[in-house]
Amino acid sequence: MLSRQISQQLIEEETPFYLYDMGLLRQTLESLTSEANKYGYKVHYAIKANFDPRILEEIHKFGLGIDCASGNELRTAIEAGFAPKTIVYAGVGKRDKELRYAIEQDILSINCESIQELGIIDELAREQGRVTDVCLRINPDIDPRTHHCIDTGQADSKFGIPYEEVKEHIDWIKGLKNVRIIGLHLHIGSQIRELHVFESMCRKVNSIYADMVKRGFDLRMVDCGGGLGINYDVPENEPIPNFASLFSIVHNHLDVGDAEVHFEFGRSIVAQCGELITRVLFNKTTATGRKLLIVDGSMTELIRPALYGSYHNIENVTAQDEENTAKYTIVGTACESTDVFDQNVSLPVTKRGDLLAIKSAGAYGMSMASRYNLHDLPRAVYRT
Amino acid sequence: MLSRQISQQLIEEETPFYLYDMGLLRQTLESLTSEANKYGYKVHYAIKANFDPRILEEIHKFGLGIDCASGNELRTAIEAGFAPKTIVYAGVGKRDKELRYAIEQDILSINCESIQELGIIDELAREQGRVTDVCLRINPDIDPRTHHCIDTGQADSKFGIPYEEVKEHIDWIKGLKNVRIIGLHLHIGSQIRELHVFESMCRKVNSIYADMVKRGFDLRMVDCGGGLGINYDVPENEPIPNFASLFSIVHNHLDVGDAEVHFEFGRSIVAQCGELITRVLFNKTTATGRKLLIVDGSMTELIRPALYGSYHNIENVTAQDEENTAKYTIVGTACESTDVFDQNVSLPVTKRGDLLAIKSAGAYGMSMASRYNLHDLPRAVYRT
Repeated sequence: MLSRQISQQLIEEETPFYLYDMGLLRQTLESLTSEANKYGYKVHYAIKANFDPRILEEIHKFGLGIDCASGNELRTAIEAGFAPKTIVYAGVGKRDKELRYAIEQDILSINCESIQELGIIDELAREQGRVTDVCLRINPDIDPRTHHCIDTGQADSKFGIPYEEVKEHIDWIKGLKNVRIIGLHLHIGSQIRELHVFESMCRKVNSIYADMVKRGFDLRMVDCGGGLGINYDVPENEPIPNFASLFSIVHNHLDVGDAEVHFEFGRSIVAQCGELITRVLFNKTTATGRKLLIVDGSMTELIRPALYGSYHNIENVTAQDEENTAKYTIVGTACESTDVFDQNVSLPVTKRGDLLAIKSAGAYGMSMASRYNLHDLPRAVYRT
Repeated sequence: MLSRQISQQLIEEETPFYLYDMGLLRQTLESLTSEANKYGYKVHYAIKANFDPRILEEIHKFGLGIDCASGNELRTAIEAGFAPKTIVYAGVGKRDKELRYAIEQDILSINCESIQELGIIDELAREQGRVTDVCLRINPDIDPRTHHCIDTGQADSKFGIPYEEVKEHIDWIKGLKNVRIIGLHLHIGSQIRELHVFESMCRKVNSIYADMVKRGFDLRMVDCGGGLGINYDVPENEPIPNFASLFSIVHNHLDVGDAEVHFEFGRSIVAQCGELITRVLFNKTTATGRKLLIVDGSMTELIRPALYGSYHNIENVTAQDEENTAKYTIVGTACESTDVFDQNVSLPVTKRGDLLAIKSAGAYGMSMASRYNLHDLPRAVYRT
C-alpha cells in the first residue's frame, strides 16, 4: 500500500487539484511513438481527453498530430503549434463556421459523418475556392464490448455513415468538385480491453477500402480511430497501455496497400498520468451505518463516476497507519446525491485532512469539469 | 402545436443559447411571494439552480433570500446585493475557508450537516471571536418518491445529521461557546410531485422541534428546504408551480409555535422560464432506420438527460408544415454516445436550420454547463 510518497509541498497545496506525472506521460509517448514507428503508423492525440497546455506541449514534442472534435479544439491545437496537416477533425455536428475554419486552415482531413454534411463541406469549400481533403467516417457496426455510454461504432449510433449509404451516393460523391475523398475513418469505441475486436475492425476496413478503390477512389489514408483501453482497476500494474499489441493486431490484419495508417489515442495517452488529489473534510456515519468520507473534490472536477458509473481506484496517500483498514463510501461536496466517487472502498483508517488520490483521471477529468455550485475549475500541478 | 411564435431576431441569433422568459419569471415570483406572504413564510432562492445575473437581479427585487451550497455561491449572492441575513448556507463538504467567510459575513444561518462540522464551525468562529448562527440539518429519513439521483433525505444519504446522533451529543452541543443553534433544517429531495410527502416532513419537523425545545434549545427558525416539482411533461399546462398547495399542506401540518418558517426553492422558480434553443445541423438515418436530428447544442450546455436520464419536452419552434410529423432521436454535437436529448420524439417534419426549444431548462442547465470538447459556454438571451 501507499504505493508512492507524496511530498510535503503537495500536501500543502490547496485541494482539489489534478496532479500530472509528466515523466509517465513522456514514457507513455516514448512507448507509443517507438511502437508506431515500427510500422510507419501516424498517431493523432484526441485533444478532447485533456487540453491542458503543458500536456499538449509534451505531446507536440513527440511529433503527434491532433484529433479534434470541434472548431475550438481545432483552434486550440493550431495555437499550441500543431501543424494543420497533422490534424483530423471528426464530429457528428459540425457547424458551418467550424467547417469554414477547418477548410481555411487546410487541415489533413475533415472526417465527414453524413452524406448531408459532405454536401455542405463541398458548398463551403466552393465559397472559399478550395478543394478540401475529406475522409469518410464509416459506421463499422461492430460491438466494441465496452460500456454502452462510450461505444460509438454500432449500427444504431449517431456516429459515421453506413457504408450502404455511401454506395447509394457513389456517383454524387464522385461528382463533388470541392471535396477530395482521401481516405476512410472508422472508430469502434472507447476503453476497449478485448483487443480482438480490432481484428473485426481491420476486416471491415479491408473490405470497404477494396470496394472504394474498385469504384475508382484514390485513398491515401486510413484512420483506424482509437479506443485502446487502460487498466482502471489496478493502474500500477499497467501504467502504460499495450500499444504494441494493438499495432501488431492491426499490422497482421489490415490490408490497405500503401495507404497511410493513422490512429487517434486520447485516454490511452493521458489517463494514467493524471490523478485528482482531494482532501478529506469530514468523516460521517449514516443512520444505516455507512461510513462516509466527505472530500473537497466533487463531480464538478471529475464527473465520470456520476455520469457513467465509472470506476476509479482511490488511495489514501497520506495515511500513517497502514494496519487498520475500514470500508468507506467516498462522496463529494456537490449538492447532488449522484456525487459519489465510489462505495465500499477499503482504505487505511482515514480521517480529516488526509489526501486521497483518485487515479487514472488524466483523461475526461479536467476536460469535462463544470462550475456547478460555482466551484472553481480545478488547478493542475505537474510532477516533472 | 407551435405554442408560441419565435421572433425573426431570435431565429438569427447564434445558437445554442438559453432563452429566458423574464415575464414568466416575474409571474412565478409574484405567485410565490403572494402565497408565502399569506403565512409569513420566508423564501430563499437556491442559487445552484441558475446563477445568471439578470435572474438574480429579478429575484432580489422580489425580496427573496438565497440558499447557497458553496463559498463561491455565497460570495456571488452577496455581490448581487442579497443581505447576508437573508442567506442560508448548506452543504455536506464545507471547506474551512468557506466556513470562515460565512462566519465573517454573519449570514442568517450555516446549515450544519455533521457533528464533526459543528465542532469545526465552533472552532473557526472562536478564531474570529464571534458566535455564529447555525441550523442543524437533520436527515429526515423520508422517501421523497422522486428520482434516486436527486433524493437527499433518506437515511443512507450523505446529507444531514441523523437526529439520534444529535441526541447523543446534546450536552456537547449545548456546551459549544461560539455556535448558537437557532433552528432546524430538513430537505427531503428535489422534483417532488406527490405533495403528500411534505406531510411526513412536517410530522418529522414537529417531533424533532418539540424534542429540541424540551431539551432547552431556543429555536427561532425552521428551514423546510425545497423540492417542489415542476411539470416537465407538458410545461404549458403548468408554467407556474403550485406553491399554494405546498404552503397549505405545511400550514396545516407544521406545528412549530412562533418559529419563522423558511423554504428553499430553485427549480420551481426558474426551470420553466428557461429553454435551450438549438439549431438542427443535419438529418441522418442510421443503418437501423432510426431518424436522427443532429443539433448544435449538446450535453455540454444541458447535461440532465445524459446525467439523470431526465426528460425535457422538445418543440420545433420554426416548422412551417404542422401536418406531417415524424419520430426523431435528437442528438447533440459532443463526441459521446450519451449525448442524446431524447428518443422517439414526435415532431413536425424537421430539417436543417430549424430551431428546437428544449423546454423547462432554466434550472440545472446553464449552472451545470461544461466546456467539454472546448465548447463555448452557452449565452443567454432574455425575453423581457
